[in-house]
Amino acid sequence: MLIVQKYGGTSVGNPERIKNVAARVARFRQEGHQLVVVVSAMSGVTDSLIKLAKEIMPLPTEREMDVLLATGEQTTIALTAMALTAMGVPAVSMTGAQAGIVTDPVHTKAKIKNITPKKVHALLDAGNVVIVAGFQGETPDGLITTLGRGGSDLTAIALAAALKADICQIYTDVDGVYTTDPRIVPTAKKLDEISYDELLELASAGAKVMQSRSVEFAKKFKVIFEVRSSMNDNPGTIVKEETKSMEDVVIRGVALDKNQAKVTLVAVPDQPGVAARIFKALADATINVDMIVQNVSHGTQTRTTDISFTVDKPELLKARKVIEGLQATVGYREVLADEKIGKLSIVGVGMRSHSGVAAKMFETLARESVNIDMISTSEIKVSVVIDLAKAEQAMRAVHTAFLG
Amino acid sequence: MLIVQKYGGTSVGNPERIKNVAARVARFRQEGHQLVVVVSAMSGVTDSLIKLAKEIMPLPTEREMDVLLATGEQTTIALTAMALTAMGVPAVSMTGAQAGIVTDPVHTKAKIKNITPKKVHALLDAGNVVIVAGFQGETPDGLITTLGRGGSDLTAIALAAALKADICQIYTDVDGVYTTDPRIVPTAKKLDEISYDELLELASAGAKVMQSRSVEFAKKFKVIFEVRSSMNDNPGTIVKEETKSMEDVVIRGVALDKNQAKVTLVAVPDQPGVAARIFKALADATINVDMIVQNVSHGTQTRTTDISFTVDKPELLKARKVIEGLQATVGYREVLADEKIGKLSIVGVGMRSHSGVAAKMFETLARESVNIDMISTSEIKVSVVIDLAKAEQAMRAVHTAFLG
Repeated sequence: MLIVQKYGGTSVGNPERIKNVAARVARFRQEGHQLVVVVSAMSGVTDSLIKLAKEIMPLPTEREMDVLLATGEQTTIALTAMALTAMGVPAVSMTGAQAGIVTDPVHTKAKIKNITPKKVHALLDAGNVVIVAGFQGETPDGLITTLGRGGSDLTAIALAAALKADICQIYTDVDGVYTTDPRIVPTAKKLDEISYDELLELASAGAKVMQSRSVEFAKKFKVIFEVRSSMNDNPGTIVKEETKSMEDVVIRGVALDKNQAKVTLVAVPDQPGVAARIFKALADATINVDMIVQNVSHGTQTRTTDISFTVDKPELLKARKVIEGLQATVGYREVLADEKIGKLSIVGVGMRSHSGVAAKMFETLARESVNIDMISTSEIKVSVVIDLAKAEQAMRAVHTAFLG
Repeated sequence: MLIVQKYGGTSVGNPERIKNVAARVARFRQEGHQLVVVVSAMSGVTDSLIKLAKEIMPLPTEREMDVLLATGEQTTIALTAMALTAMGVPAVSMTGAQAGIVTDPVHTKAKIKNITPKKVHALLDAGNVVIVAGFQGETPDGLITTLGRGGSDLTAIALAAALKADICQIYTDVDGVYTTDPRIVPTAKKLDEISYDELLELASAGAKVMQSRSVEFAKKFKVIFEVRSSMNDNPGTIVKEETKSMEDVVIRGVALDKNQAKVTLVAVPDQPGVAARIFKALADATINVDMIVQNVSHGTQTRTTDISFTVDKPELLKARKVIEGLQATVGYREVLADEKIGKLSIVGVGMRSHSGVAAKMFETLARESVNIDMISTSEIKVSVVIDLAKAEQAMRAVHTAFLG
């Protein structure tokens, strides 16, 4: 089999850990597999490079930032290849550019345009383990680019697609994807499998498993991958296209996002184009809006409505300013903001074929005397905004109700 | 004018120093020049990368060592380009590969095969200062290579040749090339100019100005370069082809090499092929032999001779073993070894047209009661091996006699 493995910064955080990674790779290789190993920068390296750059230039140019950051993964590939060679396993390193990863020229958050894995194939066929630098590529003009957050996962999944690999394994410091955060809910269980869409909804609901873009890429190119631990040999969680049997499980997971803040515009005139004006202004300020809730209008003389939305907490101040700038043109009565909220979500493709899921969630919350502020639903997700102080208690109750 | 500048590891050793380099580059640029700036890894970086590698693999593979070490200069180019941009000077970085530096595939000590500076020219013509990573290149197959010791100087001189630059400036932590080591001889003077051949002889005589290969490259491609300080604005030393007027100066410099050891084979049978056997055996063991002295044979019945040679001190033990292994085939009486020697040399193209130079040196040493062990001469150099304990005193006396 051709296996693509990806190891993150913690897994390659020091020479000892790099040797552990090499030992694991060597075991797979002894079983007769071909291996492509994608590695991140050693943990802490990227941060110290950023710090160094900022000492030179508070807002470093993105072209040069990419040249600088790419050295982090380049260091790891060389060391990992050495560790394998020291164990008697033939191994060679490749930078993103050498591996044929071509991106657009958007520095620090480039998108992969295509991968020409001819050289990777040739080195594999010659009997080597091929170690590829994650997170980086080059433009058609030969400039070094980086892929932004979660870039190494993306490299692994994109390489798995281009190489038509049999398996793609994403090694991390957890055993896989859990039904919810085990640090908050001790009864959380590791999932054997999950669909791309469920993982995407969990990620957008605040579960920090993987960046959405890597999952979306995997979904688009039908790359089945496994999230598993680099600390043990336990099987992880397989992420793949939804299957019929997946719908038997009503809820796959529960996620809590404590990083959201809520903004409410009170008594907005209910006229066509008002919502558009508000969210266009927020988008122009590059503020990422998550939930939006507008209820039916009320009021006796002029009909008005309330519009609420959530943004990432660090963006709250900026969002408020944008909204305040709209008072004259939009004409609301007042703005309320609340940072003390949690967004609790349940996710599962089984919702499509099971009724009463939302109702069960709301009943559970009512039993815990948790007041619901906002509700938003998608085909496979129900999210509620609740008081932050009661959020973890609510999370445990909901997990118990659906997942035991 | 098109100027190539090279800054070593100490000159770019921290963010503050990188900013100083950028300020200097910006000044040249404000005078209307085009600039290509070659930089080394920040001082200490290469050593810590080597240490890291050795923790993984005591004898790291050379292919991966090059991938690893190349990150050092890549870090500096990004930071230097940022520093210039922060000062409002348009600047872009290039790795050795991006700058078109193609080498042979001999990892860790690759030779430059050719340079295709098309992209460098294009970026210069677009108004940029171009920052190039020293010490590195790539093979025609796209593998990263490094050039070995003194590699950044070589990058600068080779780029100056390929770009047909008007000047090449090698910035270092000394003001230029001195008549001798100022730490030992306080009256040492900075030279305004020196010929390639004189600098080469001084280097081989133990003066640590530049690696010979860079000077040889400059000589071959007639690249005039200047060795000067990155700490001040003093003019440095111009290194160029010998001119007529250079011969007016009898001696350009005095050098002392304290890193040599002497081996003597006593009473070697004076037969054809004996010397060949000895030095072939040393070469096969990759021991670098410097001076070789054999005197006319003596003895009454079987004619025998003594053969002496010098090697770098760290190689003495290895050399002794090789020689001892030859006792049966070569048949000498005994081997003597002496580590307590110094090789004192005087260098100058003026020797060709001035007689009595060697005699004056020997007289000076006699006046100081310094016994001469070995003598070796080239067209523009006289070297003597003397007692290490008297070497510095001898150096001062010879410098005074010839250079005041």
